[in-house]
Amino acid sequence: MLHAKLDSGDTALVSELLRSRKAGHTLPAQLYTSEAAYQADCDAIFSRHWIAVGVDCDVEEPGDVIAVDIGTSSILILRDDEMNIRAFHNVCSHRGARLVPPGRSVVGKLVCPYHQWTYDLDGALALAPHMGLDFERDLHHLKPVALQSVGGILYACLSDDPPEDISDLINIVGERLKPYDLQNAKIAHETETIEDGNWKLTMENNRECYHCASNHPELSLSFHSADFGFDPEGLSPSERAEAETLANAYAEKALVWEGAGLDHAPIEHTVGFPTNFRTQRLIIAGLGESHTMSTRAASTIPLGQMTMPGAGDLHLWGINSWNHVMNDHAVIFTAMPISADKTLVRTKWLVHKDAVEGEDYDLETLTAVWNATNKEDAHLVAIAHQGVSSQGYRPGPYSRYTERALDEFASWYVERMTANGYGA
Amino acid sequence: MLHAKLDSGDTALVSELLRSRKAGHTLPAQLYTSEAAYQADCDAIFSRHWIAVGVDCDVEEPGDVIAVDIGTSSILILRDDEMNIRAFHNVCSHRGARLVPPGRSVVGKLVCPYHQWTYDLDGALALAPHMGLDFERDLHHLKPVALQSVGGILYACLSDDPPEDISDLINIVGERLKPYDLQNAKIAHETETIEDGNWKLTMENNRECYHCASNHPELSLSFHSADFGFDPEGLSPSERAEAETLANAYAEKALVWEGAGLDHAPIEHTVGFPTNFRTQRLIIAGLGESHTMSTRAASTIPLGQMTMPGAGDLHLWGINSWNHVMNDHAVIFTAMPISADKTLVRTKWLVHKDAVEGEDYDLETLTAVWNATNKEDAHLVAIAHQGVSSQGYRPGPYSRYTERALDEFASWYVERMTANGYGA
Amino acid sequence: MLHAKLDSGDTALVSELLRSRKAGHTLPAQLYTSEAAYQADCDAIFSRHWIAVGVDCDVEEPGDVIAVDIGTSSILILRDDEMNIRAFHNVCSHRGARLVPPGRSVVGKLVCPYHQWTYDLDGALALAPHMGLDFERDLHHLKPVALQSVGGILYACLSDDPPEDISDLINIVGERLKPYDLQNAKIAHETETIEDGNWKLTMENNRECYHCASNHPELSLSFHSADFGFDPEGLSPSERAEAETLANAYAEKALVWEGAGLDHAPIEHTVGFPTNFRTQRLIIAGLGESHTMSTRAASTIPLGQMTMPGAGDLHLWGINSWNHVMNDHAVIFTAMPISADKTLVRTKWLVHKDAVEGEDYDLETLTAVWNATNKEDAHLVAIAHQGVSSQGYRPGPYSRYTERALDEFASWYVERMTANGYGA
Repeated sequence: MLHAKLDSGDTALVSELLRSRKAGHTLPAQLYTSEAAYQADCDAIFSRHWIAVGVDCDVEEPGDVIAVDIGTSSILILRDDEMNIRAFHNVCSHRGARLVPPGRSVVGKLVCPYHQWTYDLDGALALAPHMGLDFERDLHHLKPVALQSVGGILYACLSDDPPEDISDLINIVGERLKPYDLQNAKIAHETETIEDGNWKLTMENNRECYHCASNHPELSLSFHSADFGFDPEGLSPSERAEAETLANAYAEKALVWEGAGLDHAPIEHTVGFPTNFRTQRLIIAGLGESHTMSTRAASTIPLGQMTMPGAGDLHLWGINSWNHVMNDHAVIFTAMPISADKTLVRTKWLVHKDAVEGEDYDLETLTAVWNATNKEDAHLVAIAHQGVSSQGYRPGPYSRYTERALDEFASWYVERMTANGYGA
Repeated sequence: MLHAKLDSGDTALVSELLRSRKAGHTLPAQLYTSEAAYQADCDAIFSRHWIAVGVDCDVEEPGDVIAVDIGTSSILILRDDEMNIRAFHNVCSHRGARLVPPGRSVVGKLVCPYHQWTYDLDGALALAPHMGLDFERDLHHLKPVALQSVGGILYACLSDDPPEDISDLINIVGERLKPYDLQNAKIAHETETIEDGNWKLTMENNRECYHCASNHPELSLSFHSADFGFDPEGLSPSERAEAETLANAYAEKALVWEGAGLDHAPIEHTVGFPTNFRTQRLIIAGLGESHTMSTRAASTIPLGQMTMPGAGDLHLWGINSWNHVMNDHAVIFTAMPISADKTLVRTKWLVHKDAVEGEDYDLETLTAVWNATNKEDAHLVAIAHQGVSSQGYRPGPYSRYTERALDEFASWYVERMTANGYGA
Repeated sequence: MLHAKLDSGDTALVSELLRSRKAGHTLPAQLYTSEAAYQADCDAIFSRHWIAVGVDCDVEEPGDVIAVDIGTSSILILRDDEMNIRAFHNVCSHRGARLVPPGRSVVGKLVCPYHQWTYDLDGALALAPHMGLDFERDLHHLKPVALQSVGGILYACLSDDPPEDISDLINIVGERLKPYDLQNAKIAHETETIEDGNWKLTMENNRECYHCASNHPELSLSFHSADFGFDPEGLSPSERAEAETLANAYAEKALVWEGAGLDHAPIEHTVGFPTNFRTQRLIIAGLGESHTMSTRAASTIPLGQMTMPGAGDLHLWGINSWNHVMNDHAVIFTAMPISADKTLVRTKWLVHKDAVEGEDYDLETLTAVWNATNKEDAHLVAIAHQGVSSQGYRPGPYSRYTERALDEFASWYVERMTANGYGA
């Protein structure tokens, strides 16, 4: 079903837009705003790449199910009786009804509410009333979706031929996440925000901290925006001193982290890699413990084996996600396109599964920084989308210091669209 | 104005989808979900077939008018001074303004609110101020719409060349409806529900009772879902006994009904007939009187001459309607497409025109079953539409026992679309 | 970026519709209802003509800014430190974010909220942090938009090659507006109404008073609907007497106005002129002072030098605007397309800048007539749009007496679309 919702005119438009992208500059307007580009993104990016969809602890127990929408598809993720996590299209094989409603359910088997077709947790069709004794149930099992847990974070791929370089993500990031044991975390809080902008503007916004100082007073308490780049010649004397102090701190920390067996170096897979990601261990500002208003830990029970102070923030970007994993808690973000101009951002705060709300952590303390930051980012994405929708918009220049990662993301995007049937 | 809103690419897409339909299976997804198929349906089905639009008693008195939308058209239906029921496009011949607002009005003449162009109830332009003495008013009468009453149920056809087989509906169904005298009924209650799904999913949902047992506890009190088919080999012993009892009851009733001159045999016009309908007399379950929670009559005054107990439920399906006509009341449903994913279901409960609310019938008793059932059906149509919108959907198999009528409907749909310029 | 959002099929459709327009008749339906025509209008009309966008006194002081949307573009209009009024695209040259929010702001410089790119009030990029010392700021100034004040009313043109006949508007209308000194007026009140219809239906509705008698009881107190034409042979004796009285009054007034140096003759630029306008001085009915319920002035301080009683209503139409300028106040209307079926009507009531609310004028008295009339017109535009959206619509005949100006507007529209790449 290549380009199922696009006619040849739409495909030609998207291809022309992709070809016209100028290096070092934001994308042509209609790649952000047109229905054609939205459908092409759902097809080429969201149906053919490994997309972050949740965390292992979304489905803690056998029979736990969540439904997740990826573009125009709905999938369900469940824990089976052998404790495997599986994913299927959330579509009954009979008349196509949605099997489980949005959000979380607990089931014994998957029973379609329409006509009671009943599936085992491995997707096998166990019961199909009134279909006749000769009905071949084997031909009507649920359609599976490729799923991988990377250190407790779940990635799904709708394609029958998923990119093989998910192994890099598992080897590199899975390894770094091991001591945090996110498989044994729990979701302390979850929010959903609909941003009024294209998903690529959401991702661009997240890939730079050029906008942090003026827009994120809460996050700036624990986050060094210089980590995401700066113009060395444009610094004031005090900024220059600060930058040098931070550089020295990283040099010092590198030895400490290496001594503790904690990988920290930036590793980035963008252009040339289907599975886009970036990981790096960051120093937390202030008292250095966590992304909270006080910069101290929000939970008294560390994740996994993370008892060493100063392990910082294990930062991870992906195609549609960003993550901050700290000693005491992790914040996991996924972005899903809803339309050309709407993006759902889902945020999950994870703490150790034994941590008790009110005793070991306080929800307001845990969530204050990123609740505020999400709200601020939603506004920035909205005004960016409004601007690129205006006839006065022309692709503008990225800063080579603070927006290199956005340029990389745009280049990766054009490359992946082209590799999947657009832009050539 | 063939295919007015569709360009050639859209027409080609719809045609390709129609050709790809696999017998015995639900339709390809985009016939349910695409804007192109919605526009094609409005054109080929809703503008060229006899569509159920209301009942005679919507316009009881001279000057009564209702406005009804059929797809992208608005028509008005009125009772003229000679008690004829007429239909016109609800569009002023001058600047096109809508002549009467949605719902019911009472008028002397039809006066356009914009510039007071005034039409007689036969559509003649009686007055057109400021158009000059030489203005040929004859050329600007209201555009009539073909209208037929079938035993008190109104069917309109927007085409200038309406299908001739409306005569079959009149001869067969009109005859069966005669003793109910629906022309002298009144509308006791009316509801409008917007279902979040394509109109064909609404119609499919209505054409089977495979889903009734699990979804319609209220309707199941008075309705034998076995009437709509079952797998004879898949029955439990108790279900088998029940089926045999029902079969015997029908054999017995056949004699009684024939003795009373009440036609009962199933007659079905689908593939091969432009005017799709099915009629059959059904036994009402429980105490056998009516679709109420008690299964007893809701109104003490029978419709027309229907004094004989046990006359059952005269059931009638159509292209966009379903109807249950019982001794004491009738329930008349019409479905109108609003967009690819929205369908308006209008339900009218009819009782004898002399029946007085609070004395002869209680509104809650009269409407409880179908109010509940409508709500349940709306949910089923919504999850079906969500499912077919998902990339994981593939056309699924209909049960040859319980969903034969859906297969017929899908085949009829493909045939009629093809006959009207698509799919060939 | 010719036809940026239209593919060749859409352009062909619009062109065919334009060619099929029949003289003396309303436009083909899809020129009012289709997305293709809406995009074509935004392109050919709203991006290539002088569009009324506001008034000088929207930005009274240096640093005052308003943001105005024209079709799919957002522009900002500001007063600079030298008291010049300037317009720019409301789009940052960096990542495209909208610089100022909807409505009014006061600024020192224009600072983009996203990354603090900072522009002087002449559009020069003064500051662009982190872009490097070699960054050529000169290449990234704000994109200017052509702007002209015509006697205190602001017109903008998004094109780089604006129609030159704006000079006619300045010479003719600017001259007539001089004694009202609208540059030194203030906005006493402002409303925004979203009409549920195409912008051309909004403009057609405004260009005739055929509908006034039945629909505008408030406006009819001060407005002679005969000013906009009538069928001389269709008048009743009393209407005929009234028409003669009015004709005599105009003959008398002509001498008075000429004596006072007040131009009054109707001047109309439609077919053959890119910049469509019409101006005429009208007699106010009743006591003849102003568009109020009492027909007396609403403000005790006259505009500019307008102390002479009986100067009437200096009426001005444009492509997207209509205006009534009276001795004591002016009402300025602009219409902006939001989608094929939504139009924003912005109404501003202007009084002398020294007039004090509650002392010199009462807001309810000032605004009552046009608040009521706007509401009535919005309903008429809605039923007109509903009608033209219906399949029963056919282009209807304009009255040669009362709707000549609509016929001219439709002809002008077709001409301008054709001149700008459609319809040829």
